[in-house]
Amino acid sequence: MPTEPLYLEDIAVGDHFVTGSLTVTTEDIQAFARQFDPQPFHLDAEAAVDSLFAGLAASGWHTAALTMRLLVEGFPLARGVIGAGGELAWPRPTRPGDALTVHGEVLQVTPSRSRPDRGMLLVRSETRNQHGEAVQVFTVNIVAWRRPG
Amino acid sequence: MPTEPLYLEDIAVGDHFVTGSLTVTTEDIQAFARQFDPQPFHLDAEAAVDSLFAGLAASGWHTAALTMRLLVEGFPLARGVIGAGGELAWPRPTRPGDALTVHGEVLQVTPSRSRPDRGMLLVRSETRNQHGEAVQVFTVNIVAWRRPG
Repeated sequence: MPTEPLYLEDIAVGDHFVTGSLTVTTEDIQAFARQFDPQPFHLDAEAAVDSLFAGLAASGWHTAALTMRLLVEGFPLARGVIGAGGELAWPRPTRPGDALTVHGEVLQVTPSRSRPDRGMLLVRSETRNQHGEAVQVFTVNIVAWRRPG
Repeated sequence: MPTEPLYLEDIAVGDHFVTGSLTVTTEDIQAFARQFDPQPFHLDAEAAVDSLFAGLAASGWHTAALTMRLLVEGFPLARGVIGAGGELAWPRPTRPGDALTVHGEVLQVTPSRSRPDRGMLLVRSETRNQHGEAVQVFTVNIVAWRRPG
């Protein structure tokens, strides 16, 4: 995992990175759900049994937010990690006790034609649980800055 | 805005809905960022001036989470709102004081071939601020259940 801020020039197609990991508790899942996604299968283990998830599951947005936290710490782009959007999928839910890690791969590096100080990365970020199973795949366009001077 | 739970049979291509609205404060933006997206432009108005956002901006994941909250309350699908993923974009940031509302449109309704109790909706959800500007567009596949019996 790099520790110096990364500029566009430091990044190449095919580069891989792996972030640190974060463990999610039942309380975390419920607290997020109460605020942003108050549905029974995110709030109550008993009510979740009969749901599509067949047990308590984190909101997909909770998985996404935790992924962002890991990316901010584990993919140290100069001037920050700013995404413009992309393709998002949740192949399976995050469960209580899961430890999440993000595995990133740079798919494209595109210098801007109109703005010489920046460019865009296309990054496939796969968030995996402790069993190596993907809980989220986000293929995202991220701003990268050119090294000044 | 419908109040009865909606089943697949209740939903047609071209259906529109509008959710309630939620207002975002500076404190909300900072609290979310501290937990999930701790970058200066989401935490500190002064530091944000020189960023790409040119002022304090909510994390895109905060906008996404608030959108989910509005959808849970404003698009009352039977057995809950469960998305499988989709295409996500943040055309502009959410700012302190913004009041967000989600405008939804059903693009596709697809009964499952293998599972007679369910189907999939493709919904374009546009989250707008109080000026009618889009802060998020999420075109998402959502599970819909057939009416039992």
